[in-house]
Amino acid sequence: MPVGSVQCDNTTLNLLKANDFVAKAIRERLKDVCVINVCSSPGSGKTTLMQETGKRLSSELNIAVLVGDPETERDAVRMREVGINALQIVTGGMCHIEAQMVLQALDHINLDGVDLLFIENVGNLLCPAAFDLGEDYRVTLLASTEGDDKPKKYPRMFLTSELMLVSKADLLPYVPFSVEAVTKDAREVNPNLEVISISTLNGEGIDAWCSWLKDKVRAKKGIKG
Amino acid sequence: MPVGSVQCDNTTLNLLKANDFVAKAIRERLKDVCVINVCSSPGSGKTTLMQETGKRLSSELNIAVLVGDPETERDAVRMREVGINALQIVTGGMCHIEAQMVLQALDHINLDGVDLLFIENVGNLLCPAAFDLGEDYRVTLLASTEGDDKPKKYPRMFLTSELMLVSKADLLPYVPFSVEAVTKDAREVNPNLEVISISTLNGEGIDAWCSWLKDKVRAKKGIKG
Repeated sequence: MPVGSVQCDNTTLNLLKANDFVAKAIRERLKDVCVINVCSSPGSGKTTLMQETGKRLSSELNIAVLVGDPETERDAVRMREVGINALQIVTGGMCHIEAQMVLQALDHINLDGVDLLFIENVGNLLCPAAFDLGEDYRVTLLASTEGDDKPKKYPRMFLTSELMLVSKADLLPYVPFSVEAVTKDAREVNPNLEVISISTLNGEGIDAWCSWLKDKVRAKKGIKG
Repeated sequence: MPVGSVQCDNTTLNLLKANDFVAKAIRERLKDVCVINVCSSPGSGKTTLMQETGKRLSSELNIAVLVGDPETERDAVRMREVGINALQIVTGGMCHIEAQMVLQALDHINLDGVDLLFIENVGNLLCPAAFDLGEDYRVTLLASTEGDDKPKKYPRMFLTSELMLVSKADLLPYVPFSVEAVTKDAREVNPNLEVISISTLNGEGIDAWCSWLKDKVRAKKGIKG
């Protein structure tokens, strides 16, 4: 049906649409890999969780990590030190990873036989929420030390996530944080959100987190659990 | 000197220049008020520090707070509950406060006789760094629970701050965080950065923080200490 003109949205929306187009291309390219976009504030424990997860699951799953930071390659170094196949995305000060950055990174990391690819996003509870990276699932960490009022203040991140990990659960005795209250608030934003409390220090919830991951890898490969 | 054309920068730069123009107008309007832009990740303790500071200094200084969040008015409510003159800026999901939002807010808060105006920014260690809000000083909180690797990863915020507050110092015994290491890293980014460790729970460093503030208010009013 020929038309005389195309009505376009404003520039920002077009750029977000371009991002989504690239995200779709990533999904097509990684159709045998379960991709998890891991988000949180700075210092909520994403990298430590990646290290711990790699250690726990390395005998069962082939794992790779793309890790974003505005500056430095420290996190990829930390992961490679414990034997994880990791590539740093340095965003050059940018506050989030975009799909185009992931697409570019895919040419520089060996994904042969990889079952599970984590994209550890830039530490930021806001901007990454707007960018689809071609992931299958989005997981948001919220540390017990950050306070239980965050889901209502930063709703978009919790709305677009499948799982909220309450991290640093070992510090719960020392900080004013109610897992019950934060779960209630987060589910008012996103009724389908799953919640697991975890601690990489005392191991709480790590088994549940690993089971969650293995289920998702199985689902991606079309294997019945 | 008449010219035939004006060479302009790209749109983003123009918008940042417009922000700086508005920030200058704020500075002219608030020439008797010491303005502090308080930045950090989500949950580093900005609001609790504002409450504690209000309590400590209310007999000596007239304090007001503009507080930014992507959603909810919870923080302004928390501050008004302890008697602080506070106005919420709800950014509508935006990841930082802009000068225009502050200018608009100034028409809705009574600043008669106010010595010290805090602008508590959105919890985000990245985007707020780019926006001058007309402040005299920028103060960045970094919680001990966030890890001591943040100044090198998020350098712009520390580069543009006068003071780094290491918050939640009471948790230092429980977390892997070296005040010495973080100070060294932060001063490699910004050699002039002052550093104070604080805890609103056990009171550590709060006297030093209040003295710092009183010095700045005196300096703004042109009073010798």
